Amino acid sequence: MNQFVKFRREFHKFPEYGWREIRTSARIAEYLTSLGYDCLMGPDVVCTDSVQPAVRPSAQEVSEARQRAVAQGADPAFVERTKGWPGVIAELNTQKEGPITAFRFDIDCLPYDEPKTAGYRPFDEDYVSCNEGLVHACGHDVHTAVGMGIAAALMEKKDALRGRIRLIFQPAEETFYGAQSVIDKGHLDDVENFIALHVALSAENKPLPSNTVCCGCKDFLSDRQLDITFHGRAAHPCGASQEGKNALLAACSAALNLHSIAPHEEGMFRINVGELHAGVAANTIAPNALLRLEYRGETPNVAAYGAKRVFDILDGTAKAYDLTYTCLDYGDVPAGRSDDAMMEVIERAARKVPWFEKIYFEGNVGGTDDAAAMITKVQQNGGIGTYIGIGTDTTQPVHNAEFDLDEDCIDAAIQLCIHALEELHGDN
Amino acid sequence: MNQFVKFRREFHKFPEYGWREIRTSARIAEYLTSLGYDCLMGPDVVCTDSVQPAVRPSAQEVSEARQRAVAQGADPAFVERTKGWPGVIAELNTQKEGPITAFRFDIDCLPYDEPKTAGYRPFDEDYVSCNEGLVHACGHDVHTAVGMGIAAALMEKKDALRGRIRLIFQPAEETFYGAQSVIDKGHLDDVENFIALHVALSAENKPLPSNTVCCGCKDFLSDRQLDITFHGRAAHPCGASQEGKNALLAACSAALNLHSIAPHEEGMFRINVGELHAGVAANTIAPNALLRLEYRGETPNVAAYGAKRVFDILDGTAKAYDLTYTCLDYGDVPAGRSDDAMMEVIERAARKVPWFEKIYFEGNVGGTDDAAAMITKVQQNGGIGTYIGIGTDTTQPVHNAEFDLDEDCIDAAIQLCIHALEELHGDN
Amino acid sequence: MNQFVKFRREFHKFPEYGWREIRTSARIAEYLTSLGYDCLMGPDVVCTDSVQPAVRPSAQEVSEARQRAVAQGADPAFVERTKGWPGVIAELNTQKEGPITAFRFDIDCLPYDEPKTAGYRPFDEDYVSCNEGLVHACGHDVHTAVGMGIAAALMEKKDALRGRIRLIFQPAEETFYGAQSVIDKGHLDDVENFIALHVALSAENKPLPSNTVCCGCKDFLSDRQLDITFHGRAAHPCGASQEGKNALLAACSAALNLHSIAPHEEGMFRINVGELHAGVAANTIAPNALLRLEYRGETPNVAAYGAKRVFDILDGTAKAYDLTYTCLDYGDVPAGRSDDAMMEVIERAARKVPWFEKIYFEGNVGGTDDAAAMITKVQQNGGIGTYIGIGTDTTQPVHNAEFDLDEDCIDAAIQLCIHALEELHGDN
Amino acid sequence: MNQFVKFRREFHKFPEYGWREIRTSARIAEYLTSLGYDCLMGPDVVCTDSVQPAVRPSAQEVSEARQRAVAQGADPAFVERTKGWPGVIAELNTQKEGPITAFRFDIDCLPYDEPKTAGYRPFDEDYVSCNEGLVHACGHDVHTAVGMGIAAALMEKKDALRGRIRLIFQPAEETFYGAQSVIDKGHLDDVENFIALHVALSAENKPLPSNTVCCGCKDFLSDRQLDITFHGRAAHPCGASQEGKNALLAACSAALNLHSIAPHEEGMFRINVGELHAGVAANTIAPNALLRLEYRGETPNVAAYGAKRVFDILDGTAKAYDLTYTCLDYGDVPAGRSDDAMMEVIERAARKVPWFEKIYFEGNVGGTDDAAAMITKVQQNGGIGTYIGIGTDTTQPVHNAEFDLDEDCIDAAIQLCIHALEELHGDN
Repeated sequence: MNQFVKFRREFHKFPEYGWREIRTSARIAEYLTSLGYDCLMGPDVVCTDSVQPAVRPSAQEVSEARQRAVAQGADPAFVERTKGWPGVIAELNTQKEGPITAFRFDIDCLPYDEPKTAGYRPFDEDYVSCNEGLVHACGHDVHTAVGMGIAAALMEKKDALRGRIRLIFQPAEETFYGAQSVIDKGHLDDVENFIALHVALSAENKPLPSNTVCCGCKDFLSDRQLDITFHGRAAHPCGASQEGKNALLAACSAALNLHSIAPHEEGMFRINVGELHAGVAANTIAPNALLRLEYRGETPNVAAYGAKRVFDILDGTAKAYDLTYTCLDYGDVPAGRSDDAMMEVIERAARKVPWFEKIYFEGNVGGTDDAAAMITKVQQNGGIGTYIGIGTDTTQPVHNAEFDLDEDCIDAAIQLCIHALEELHGDN
Repeated sequence: MNQFVKFRREFHKFPEYGWREIRTSARIAEYLTSLGYDCLMGPDVVCTDSVQPAVRPSAQEVSEARQRAVAQGADPAFVERTKGWPGVIAELNTQKEGPITAFRFDIDCLPYDEPKTAGYRPFDEDYVSCNEGLVHACGHDVHTAVGMGIAAALMEKKDALRGRIRLIFQPAEETFYGAQSVIDKGHLDDVENFIALHVALSAENKPLPSNTVCCGCKDFLSDRQLDITFHGRAAHPCGASQEGKNALLAACSAALNLHSIAPHEEGMFRINVGELHAGVAANTIAPNALLRLEYRGETPNVAAYGAKRVFDILDGTAKAYDLTYTCLDYGDVPAGRSDDAMMEVIERAARKVPWFEKIYFEGNVGGTDDAAAMITKVQQNGGIGTYIGIGTDTTQPVHNAEFDLDEDCIDAAIQLCIHALEELHGDN
Repeated sequence: MNQFVKFRREFHKFPEYGWREIRTSARIAEYLTSLGYDCLMGPDVVCTDSVQPAVRPSAQEVSEARQRAVAQGADPAFVERTKGWPGVIAELNTQKEGPITAFRFDIDCLPYDEPKTAGYRPFDEDYVSCNEGLVHACGHDVHTAVGMGIAAALMEKKDALRGRIRLIFQPAEETFYGAQSVIDKGHLDDVENFIALHVALSAENKPLPSNTVCCGCKDFLSDRQLDITFHGRAAHPCGASQEGKNALLAACSAALNLHSIAPHEEGMFRINVGELHAGVAANTIAPNALLRLEYRGETPNVAAYGAKRVFDILDGTAKAYDLTYTCLDYGDVPAGRSDDAMMEVIERAARKVPWFEKIYFEGNVGGTDDAAAMITKVQQNGGIGTYIGIGTDTTQPVHNAEFDLDEDCIDAAIQLCIHALEELHGDN
Repeated sequence: MNQFVKFRREFHKFPEYGWREIRTSARIAEYLTSLGYDCLMGPDVVCTDSVQPAVRPSAQEVSEARQRAVAQGADPAFVERTKGWPGVIAELNTQKEGPITAFRFDIDCLPYDEPKTAGYRPFDEDYVSCNEGLVHACGHDVHTAVGMGIAAALMEKKDALRGRIRLIFQPAEETFYGAQSVIDKGHLDDVENFIALHVALSAENKPLPSNTVCCGCKDFLSDRQLDITFHGRAAHPCGASQEGKNALLAACSAALNLHSIAPHEEGMFRINVGELHAGVAANTIAPNALLRLEYRGETPNVAAYGAKRVFDILDGTAKAYDLTYTCLDYGDVPAGRSDDAMMEVIERAARKVPWFEKIYFEGNVGGTDDAAAMITKVQQNGGIGTYIGIGTDTTQPVHNAEFDLDEDCIDAAIQLCIHALEELHGDN
């Protein structure tokens, strides 16, 4: 097993949730430093003012994350350097004139329990998650390992390269404001070429299996997350039931109506009420309910339509149940598009990697990634970018707690990126 | 402020949830012992085998309850005597031949947060709940204080009484199996007269205000509580949404349909989905959902009808969403009826208490109380019983976290019971 | 088979809907006239201005009802006398001083199809409904026949009676304003005793079987019917689906939420969305939806609570779906109560009818009857009244299209009323 | 106003529903005959055995359609020739060797009421629908007029053409089996080139306005229509409500859950419950409910997923409400794709029509058209085809009852098709 597969399994075993990736950041920095990179960490990577209160961890959570990082094998010196904030940036500066290329690798996990059952490879081979309620079910463990592999390979090839190559290990992709906080710190301001990659995308309406790749995607959806709290009134369900204002039923009715929002002809619209928590006891009319939802749109018009329909339904449901609601808005991740010019670079690079037997020029995100914010930033400055889909056989779709994959994709992804860099930064 | 109002406020300040009433039990036993009673405690009061796994606290929860009891002023010696189980029984045995009468006082609280706001008397006068997420919003603090007042009064009058008078301080009325566990221990086997009382009942379709009383109720509903867990499948809401099995939407649809169950001509039917907890993240199709519900029926036919409709809806919803569910059944509390003969005893006693300006012969439970199980047990042995409603002005309906009341009802209730006992046990 | 069973079967065979009972009225008047009564008919019975536009038949419907009446055997002379309005009143005036007693018999049917299947007695014995979409599924055919039997028996006994006895054959009980229109015409103004009867009521939570009777009811519910029309916007469900305002989904959501309205502790609340008609084609987002609903309450408070909840839900649903609604209000039928004094008269009379083996003093309407408006009117003038339940075995509950019953109840009901009249009007 | 705009307005004024287009067929045939064509009509155009019972009109409906056709100005001789079946085919046979090209024009209308309000051009200019409940809200009046214009133009140019050109005026596109019945009759068996056109399609996610055209579409959705009838049980909503099986609530719950079916990553999925009709009276629990629905999928996998989800929901809802359902299946219309080769022909032709200022190579159906069945048939025999979108400004989206459009598109469409025919059949 090569080193980067080992790294992937290590990150898989010790997953960390958005804005709490202290151990992961320390381990990345420790390795990159050992390769010879100077690393930026924590508040030098992310603009901490950009992190919305809704997602910002408490002081106690940060403290616990730091303690756990050390307990799970991180070097205390690097944990100290995080100052309690995740994120790492390393740059190869060839000292020769040339373009600036940035890579984005996302490092956070998802908030589910990974099953501990025999026959499930992460369990059998001892890399199942040790952190309760947390799992790398979206491949960010792979992305992180690929980034480390690129870092290692670049050091070997640096004499043949020009310009500067920036490796951004970004926190909090799944929750919000990871990418934006890095942008707000200025790390994308001078970037001419931008590349991000993700496993388990699709092309031609089918998941990309092992030995395939797509060179870019143009269908990023915008995404907005809301926490909606209905405020009703408790009552005994027999005693004075007419005094109750049933927030649980209001939330149920809202959820069904939200999922029934009509599609939009202009592009994809998606909504998901992902969590609902309501009530205090079986024998009490529920005085409160929390709906945690997100909606996405393929264009600004579609997103605006979604917003209108969502708030009409919330307002109307509150009226129907004679109660009020409050809204915690996590903000928006924008839509975005890869550039053909960069996709062509990737296509040429992919032809040089034998593992890729089938190359799709364009694939599908089928959702949202805040890499779109970075691509857009680079494009605004005249640069180009792409979002690559690395094919890999999987045990389950992404965001399922039993998501595992064909680790051969790691080495292929590293090779692909190195070939692309050779074209972009080749010293010839 | 008399001593029993003080006791009521003390219990209000330190509420304990069903099967965890360690401090409350220790304080009751300490006081009754000081009056001269021998007290049964814990496993001598309740049959611990009768407590269903669904409601039984874990060893750690018991340990925490014991520690908190001491920290909140309980005598460690009495805490020790609980052996980790709540409940107290004290008996006045006059050593003269005569009937056996039992009183039931329930001592547990409800799982809500009590508001800490100025202008709310429990806060202003410093007896607001110190225990987060727990509150006496159903008057059991009053019932406990009344029981202690009866105990004190009886000691003064014991020479004028015949027979035996048993005071049962029962845990876990709000959750399940408190009354049944006392029955299973045999404490109702020899009882000829049974009395329980409750504040905030109603009569003629209106809540009983201060200065009123009803002598008994005949409309106890049966009650059954269920925890239903839907087991779906997580998926990314854009990626492979078709792979998801949305347990959250299933739960919402079930909740609305459950609340739409048609009434039954034979008697009252009530259903409440009191809690719903579903999902893992905004951006994930919810793989799981818990519905915590109860339903009640005025007759066995109505209850059977309810069971049929509830499980049809659960089965059908699981089919509609292509998922499965499991059911944790807390069991049943039966329906029951007061006896006219005992209600007439109470009516005569009430006429002797000047505070009661208006006496209703029959009132309404408007719900369930597991005292019905005790009444039924006594009736099966040829005895008689009643369930008295003590009128009192309240700030909110029962089961609302801001429920407070007119404490003058405490003394009136004590006097009422003593007058009834003088008739039943008078030595003339 | 006696004559009144034959009449019942004739009315069963030719049912007529509210405000269209032309044949029925003509047949009643023809028979009563043959007995020697002078009959009031149509506009002399009902105040036609009181009939709300929502339920008033069109000129064409009236014309069709008249033609059908003749085609189905009504005497054209009596059809002519209806002037297109249903209702008959006949009065026995003994010319001797004495009280005025009024009976109410309702004569309209329900809008269902009666099944034509072998084994169903009305079909096998040839009295199944000949009028498509109409059926006597609420026993009004029986009530009409009982009224005719009382008329016949009175003529035989008239010399032994004092005072005046008024027989009111009232249209439109199932729809609205039948009773009110008779009241508005003044026919209840001088009434001292009022009696109405109905088959298939209940007592002690069980349907009244053959050989039983209840002497009165006190639990009439108020009733209000509304036609709610949601006005949305059509659109192609793929093309420009976002332009649609889906009235069908709005109506579905409203119906579920309306059926989930919490009960009221003060008394029974009932709601029913009985009809829903929405949409124009499978491949079009529905631009319109009609909800036909009713709600009932045991007290004015409960009815007011219901109104508040109903309109909150309608307003909120309209907001949620960004559409409007209009409301056609059929008005209210009030609640009401029988008088003990009149119930005691009936109890004594029932003891004289051997067929009644079991006599309940009080029974249950379990719903609404606009006889309550008449009772209330009589009570306002100092009179007394009751609403009798005549027990009878049935094939199905009322309002089921296959409702048939034990016709022996007809003769028993006639005897009961004659005995009551002998007490009230006896010339001794 | 040119003749074909007049024809369009005439068809708009006398719309006819699927399988009842007798007047329309007679008028088309009368005109084409006057131009010199021999016309096939009715059973010579459509295979009557292919028409599913669910959509086949009754003998009485056919008779009424024939009578109305004559009353509304059709030549009785041509009405006679229909033999009660709609559809016309005319062919220009140049008697010179060459390809066979077929055009499809759909002629049926939609089942809505067109508003009769001043300010709405069809009303103001006297071509608003005279047939109650019927309206050309999908542009088939335009398509028919375009077909007649092509027929006229061809006659003028016939000497310069080779091969055979078949003009198919097809009934019943909106309902089902119009196209299939023509295919089943063999009229597509020898076709090498196939062209259909439609107004009000879109391109690049925007409706095509006037002066635009798209040369073909590849995103036809499959479509399946179902009539679902829930069979419950009626009961009085107060009396014996527990005996009811509420088909109305079942239908409402099903409709909400059907509209909440998750999307599919492989392609578009659309569902619409377009009609719901339930219940018999406000005061009766609804014993029956009809849901009229359709669902569409971009691929066979998506359609199969939809079928699974739809029937899971129907089965589950029936279980939840303890009732049964029956299903009337109208069958499927398939998906399909235009061919690039034919789209290129259209592109060249469009360049010759000055009215088209903007030409899109590919546009979007955004739905279903049974022309897809014809294209697929032709492709199976080695031919090519396309489905053209003719841009036109509209007052409302298609399938809205107030749909009107810019009639200048009619002449542009005729020119476009003639230019295409000159390339395909040019005699040079």
